[in-house]
Amino acid sequence: MIKNDILLRVANGTITERPAVWIMRQAGRILPEYRALRSKFSDFKSFIYNSEATAEATLQPVKALGVDAAIIFSDILVIPEALGCGYNMIESRGPVFENPIDSILKINNLNSPEQALNSLTYVFDSISIVKKELNDEIPLIGFAGAPWTIFAYMIEGKGSKDFSKAKKILYSNSEISHQLLQKITDTTILYLKEKVNRGCQVIQLFDSWAGILSPIHFQQFSIPYLKLICDAFHEIPVIVFAKGAMLNLNLINQLNCQVIGLDWNINMDEARKQLGTKRVLQGNLDPCAMYAIMKDIEIETLSIINQAGKHHIFNLGHGVYPDTDPQKVKAMVDLIKEYRY
Amino acid sequence: MIKNDILLRVANGTITERPAVWIMRQAGRILPEYRALRSKFSDFKSFIYNSEATAEATLQPVKALGVDAAIIFSDILVIPEALGCGYNMIESRGPVFENPIDSILKINNLNSPEQALNSLTYVFDSISIVKKELNDEIPLIGFAGAPWTIFAYMIEGKGSKDFSKAKKILYSNSEISHQLLQKITDTTILYLKEKVNRGCQVIQLFDSWAGILSPIHFQQFSIPYLKLICDAFHEIPVIVFAKGAMLNLNLINQLNCQVIGLDWNINMDEARKQLGTKRVLQGNLDPCAMYAIMKDIEIETLSIINQAGKHHIFNLGHGVYPDTDPQKVKAMVDLIKEYRY
Repeated sequence: MIKNDILLRVANGTITERPAVWIMRQAGRILPEYRALRSKFSDFKSFIYNSEATAEATLQPVKALGVDAAIIFSDILVIPEALGCGYNMIESRGPVFENPIDSILKINNLNSPEQALNSLTYVFDSISIVKKELNDEIPLIGFAGAPWTIFAYMIEGKGSKDFSKAKKILYSNSEISHQLLQKITDTTILYLKEKVNRGCQVIQLFDSWAGILSPIHFQQFSIPYLKLICDAFHEIPVIVFAKGAMLNLNLINQLNCQVIGLDWNINMDEARKQLGTKRVLQGNLDPCAMYAIMKDIEIETLSIINQAGKHHIFNLGHGVYPDTDPQKVKAMVDLIKEYRY
Repeated sequence: MIKNDILLRVANGTITERPAVWIMRQAGRILPEYRALRSKFSDFKSFIYNSEATAEATLQPVKALGVDAAIIFSDILVIPEALGCGYNMIESRGPVFENPIDSILKINNLNSPEQALNSLTYVFDSISIVKKELNDEIPLIGFAGAPWTIFAYMIEGKGSKDFSKAKKILYSNSEISHQLLQKITDTTILYLKEKVNRGCQVIQLFDSWAGILSPIHFQQFSIPYLKLICDAFHEIPVIVFAKGAMLNLNLINQLNCQVIGLDWNINMDEARKQLGTKRVLQGNLDPCAMYAIMKDIEIETLSIINQAGKHHIFNLGHGVYPDTDPQKVKAMVDLIKEYRY
């Protein structure tokens, strides 16, 4: 039994006394203790390979911020890497792939999902350590990138404003696109199943680049693979966060997921109008709102809580920015935990 | 009298025999003749200061693509530069400002709108050359960045995924924000008035970074300044293109503008549903769709035309990408010009 199970109760549709709360990127750069830990490693990759270190990073915000859930410190790009499409994380540039996918041959030469899984032991081991340390205080969230977002990185080979190379394939060769998307999906399902085996109690899918697709392409190239993943998990709640795709909430709403994540492009009351009062929603304070004075952060937070009504997991509309004051985040989390409907 | 005035007729609400068509960034890197012209200049800035060169770049797509309007080759960032906040265009990095705005003192030290105007003669001279060469064959579009987008660059000092520095000011000091936005607006109105004096017959406002604002901030920090500009032009049509803000079409619809530009995040039929059949709409083919084979481009183009119905200026949903085949663009323009409702 989980001692503070409010996130699970909200995710499963139970009416609770207050919103649950966690913060995307809560584990990471906003915390001085994270920066101290991270500085012991010469580069990001050797850090995330170290199960003890990522377990520690996962646990830091639990203590520092008092959130209602922990989320494994990792990267969505461990999946392409495990498939044989490796990357380096370059300071102030982001991920750069050594050998992006540019042919059907390269897709065929990727590792099988089972092979990929074998090289991800460091993630699963981190989960086991975290589970032991958490001691069932709060639930643990496991996550993965949505297949379209992973596909976008594997083709583009780096971050991009428009991912035009990746989108070019969608427009010029839909067959190859579906082939790669399917492979990513199969791998992601195995990966998340093992995360659940090791103790994750909630899953979040990050479709970080959903927003650069037209509605038709989102429907063709993102939704079917999100659906396959959602349908593979009956026993635990799935959160789908498709950033930039708030115009496609009707499509996301048809997925077999328990929670819909919202970015800050949509007013919470507009989302409620579209999705009804019983859909569990997560979000959606603009991460930049954390730069305001605490009084204004409180006003914005309460405004979202009021608009959302019940069935709400409070979160930012995207990851917290690195230069955010963790004291403000803690004060916001406290505010929500003290709130009563 | 303009010989091919279809764009003006559509923009003014007249029912026409076909959609009008022009392409955002039609003047520029997709054309080999542009690259030849550009290569004569060591850097982007010395190119755009040269009125003859930008006039030539403006006219190239008129001949090569047969579009229904020309648009002055320039940059939205000439406004901050004229205000005293200069930038350099760095290859593969984009604009970098030497001295971004980080204090109220720097705002107070900016040039006055009138002073700014005096340093923009090179733009106005380019318009005069173009007008002479165009010989009233087609109308000429003048453009400017929307005040929020210009503000974002002036504070951030460079392109950015999230413009968190610029948004930080909105959240932490709305008074200073409004002060700078007003100054940009006053300058932009003077600038566009002079463009009209020199012969521009349509205005397009590019709110390129509207999409990173929450609906409330869009309403507070973008819309009021777009409104001031729209209200300053009675005699000629204004197109408002707020990229990424398709969730806020209701706000844009209240502006005193003749045309609403759409990006590709919204289906044309959804936009029609929200805005009615009589609103003049511009857009909205995904620029990446130009990577498809011609047959697929035709299908997508006709689909948008059919959904849009009359009162439609065909365009892409954003600027055409540099590696797009100009022959395909020409074939698409031809298709639209031969189309009849």
